[in-house]
Amino acid sequence: MSAVKIAVMGFGVVGSGTVELFYKNKDIIEKRSGREMDIKYILDLRDFPDSPYKDKFTKKFDDILNDPEISVVAELMGGKTFAYDYTKRLLSKGVSVVTSNKELVAAYGAELLKIAKANGANYLFEASVGGGIPIIRPLHQCLAANRFSRIAGILNGTTNYILTKMIYDQLSFEEALAQAQELGYAEKDPSADVDGHDATRKLCILGSLAFGKHIYPEYIHCSGIREITLDDVEYAENAGYAIKLIGLIENTPNGLVATVCPRLVGVNNPLSSVNDVFNAIMVTGDALGDALFYGRGAGKFPTASAVVGDIIDAVKHDGREIVSLSWEDSDNKDFMCHYKSAETRVYVRIRAENVDSLKEMITGLFTYVDFIPRKHRSENELAFITPAVVESEIDQKLKAISQKAQVMKKIRLL
Amino acid sequence: MSAVKIAVMGFGVVGSGTVELFYKNKDIIEKRSGREMDIKYILDLRDFPDSPYKDKFTKKFDDILNDPEISVVAELMGGKTFAYDYTKRLLSKGVSVVTSNKELVAAYGAELLKIAKANGANYLFEASVGGGIPIIRPLHQCLAANRFSRIAGILNGTTNYILTKMIYDQLSFEEALAQAQELGYAEKDPSADVDGHDATRKLCILGSLAFGKHIYPEYIHCSGIREITLDDVEYAENAGYAIKLIGLIENTPNGLVATVCPRLVGVNNPLSSVNDVFNAIMVTGDALGDALFYGRGAGKFPTASAVVGDIIDAVKHDGREIVSLSWEDSDNKDFMCHYKSAETRVYVRIRAENVDSLKEMITGLFTYVDFIPRKHRSENELAFITPAVVESEIDQKLKAISQKAQVMKKIRLL
Repeated sequence: MSAVKIAVMGFGVVGSGTVELFYKNKDIIEKRSGREMDIKYILDLRDFPDSPYKDKFTKKFDDILNDPEISVVAELMGGKTFAYDYTKRLLSKGVSVVTSNKELVAAYGAELLKIAKANGANYLFEASVGGGIPIIRPLHQCLAANRFSRIAGILNGTTNYILTKMIYDQLSFEEALAQAQELGYAEKDPSADVDGHDATRKLCILGSLAFGKHIYPEYIHCSGIREITLDDVEYAENAGYAIKLIGLIENTPNGLVATVCPRLVGVNNPLSSVNDVFNAIMVTGDALGDALFYGRGAGKFPTASAVVGDIIDAVKHDGREIVSLSWEDSDNKDFMCHYKSAETRVYVRIRAENVDSLKEMITGLFTYVDFIPRKHRSENELAFITPAVVESEIDQKLKAISQKAQVMKKIRLL
Repeated sequence: MSAVKIAVMGFGVVGSGTVELFYKNKDIIEKRSGREMDIKYILDLRDFPDSPYKDKFTKKFDDILNDPEISVVAELMGGKTFAYDYTKRLLSKGVSVVTSNKELVAAYGAELLKIAKANGANYLFEASVGGGIPIIRPLHQCLAANRFSRIAGILNGTTNYILTKMIYDQLSFEEALAQAQELGYAEKDPSADVDGHDATRKLCILGSLAFGKHIYPEYIHCSGIREITLDDVEYAENAGYAIKLIGLIENTPNGLVATVCPRLVGVNNPLSSVNDVFNAIMVTGDALGDALFYGRGAGKFPTASAVVGDIIDAVKHDGREIVSLSWEDSDNKDFMCHYKSAETRVYVRIRAENVDSLKEMITGLFTYVDFIPRKHRSENELAFITPAVVESEIDQKLKAISQKAQVMKKIRLL
C-alpha cells in the first residue's frame, strides 16, 4: 500500500510540535498504525524560509482540499471561522480531520460529527481536552459499558498554576498571574483562562460525550478565579480544603447541572493535590466507580502527542466510522437544569463590626454551620461552611445575612 | 443486521458481574457499539438453578466453539490450562476473545496475539491490568506517538490495602493481612498478591505493550511485602516517603530493567497518595511526559466494566485487526538486563551495639548518606538512605557494613 498522505493546518505551537513529533517518532508511529505515512502539506499564511519542512508549506487551503491523496488533516489553526469552514469541507469530502480546537468542537461538535458520519470520515479531538492526557477515547471506548453520573476536572493549566502559587507561595492573584505570563503559561489577555471560558469549552466536550447530547457553553454556569483572595485560600486551608477551578457536570434528579467555577476541594480528594500546570479529570461511572486521569494539560509536545495519536487512529480507521465517538444535537433546555436548583455546600466569608454576635443568627438560618478558625482573625471577619442546601435557598439566607453584614465571598464546595 | 451473539466462559465474580452489567446497561452498550447484542452462552461446570440466566448455561465448551453465531467470547475462567486451550481454539476460528486473565496474557500473550492476527480476530485484555482503569487502550492508542521510557505502577490492590493499614493504622503486616482477608480483599493463600506475582504478571503486559516485545515473568525481579515492618514504615515517613509495592519497568542505556518490589515513594510523587485497594499507573513518554491513571484495580463491577468495554470494541472491530495491540515474541536475554546492574537509591536499616559509631564508616563508603531521625531511636538501630549507585556496588558496601553490624533491611527508592 502507498504511504498515507497527511496535511497539517496551522504551524503555531501545536502545529509545529505535531510535525516535529511525527518525524521524530515516524518509525514507531508507522509500526503502530500499520501503514507508511508522510506529511504532504503544511498550511500557514506566514513564511518559514528556514524551516526544514519549507517544501511542504502552502498558503492555499484548496491545495489540500483538492488533492485526492490527502486522507487525514490535522486542524491546528484554532478559532471558529476558517477552521469551521475548512473542517466542514474536508469532512464532506470524506477526509478525516483531527483537531485540538476545543472552541470549534464545543460550538459545532454535533454538526461536524454528523457530517463526518454521513461521509465515512472521522472527526477526532483527543487533543481538545486535557492536552496529552488520554480522556476522550477512554471515555467513549474503555468506559463504554458505564452510565456516567459525574465528571469533575481541573481542565485549565493556567488557572491551576495561579492557584498553586497563591496556595504555596502566598502570591496574590495579580502577582501569580504576572508570573504565569512571564513563564508563557498565560496570555497577555488572560481572560479566556482566568474567567473560565477555556475550561467551559472542555467541559462541553466531556459532557456531550459522556451524556450523548451536545452541551453548549451558554448552558454552563461559568465564573473564574479573579475574585479569589489569600484570605479565602487561608480559610480554605484551615478547614481542610484547597481552592481549585473545577469543571463539573452532574446528573441530578432534575437533569444535568454543569458549572465551571472555583470550588473548595477536600484534601482527601485526589484533585486537591493536582498542582502547577497539570490537569486531572475524575470520571464517575456506575460500574467503574471513580477513575482519575492526570497529566500535562497543555504544552507543545503533550498536545502534539494527542494529535498524532488521533492521526494514527484515523489512519487505522481509514474510511470506517468510529461509532462510539458521537453525540446528538439537542436543545439543552430539555435536559440541562439551572445550577441554582442544585444542592451544594458553600464557603462564605462576611464582614461586620463585632461579627461574632451574628453566629447564632447564621447557625439558625442553616440549622448548623462550620465556622472556620484563623490565626489573628479580625473581629470584623467571619468565615463558615454551610451544609448542603439548594443554592437558590442559600442565596436567600445570604440575603438575610447581608442585612447585618457584608457578604464578601461565596465559594462552592466540590 | 442480526444481533451479535456473545459467550461468557466462567461465572465467578468477574463473569457474573460481566453478565449482570451487560443486561443492566444493554441500551447504552448497544448504542455505543452500533449493534444489537446478546449473551447466548455462559460456560461453567457448576449449576446455577436459581440464576435468571439459567437457560444460557452450558458445561460443554464445544457448544460455544461450534456455534457459528458466536463472534465474541469473554474468557473469565482464569488459569493457564483450559483457558489457554479454549482461547487458542476460538482465536484459530476467527472468534475474538476478551479476557481478564493476566496470568494467561503474561505467559502466552505474544502467541495468542499472533494467532488472533492470523485469523482476523482480536484478543483484548483491558481487564487484565488495573481492573476498571483504562490503561491498555490508552497505552497503545492514545499514546501511540510516544517512545516510552518508564512505567511505574501500584498494580495490586490487596498489597496496597495492607500497606495503607500499616501506614495509617500502625497495624503489623500480619494484622493488616488478616483484616484484608476478613474483608475479602485477600485470598486464604495470599502469596500471589503479597509476594508480588500478580503485580509481576501485570507488569509483563504493560511492558510488552509499551516496548513491543513480550516480557516474561521470569525476567522480572519480584519480591513482596512480607518483610516490611512498622519500623520501616516509620523511618520512611520521617524521611518523607511512603512504602508502596511498585511494578517498575525502565529503559536504561543497558536495556530494560523490570522489578516488582516494595519501594520508598516520595510524598510529592502522586503514587505515594494512592491508598487502600486503589491502583495507579504512571506512564512516561517522550512527547507526553508523565501521565497517571488511577482507579479501582479490582472488584466485580470495575473489572466487568473493562470486560464489557472490550466486548464493545471487539464488536465494533468485527473481523478487523487492531494493529496497535500486539507485540513480538522474543528472547528476553537480548534486551532485558539484570536489576542489579541498574542504579538505584536504597533505604537501609542496621543493628549494632553503639551503632552511631559506624556513621563515619558508612558515610565514607557512600561518600554521603542521609541518616533518618526517629523518636526514641534505640542506640542499637540506625537507618539511612544512600545516593544513587549501581545496585551490585551497593550490595558490596552493605557486605562491608555487615562485618560490623546486622543489615536488617534494604528497600529501594522509586
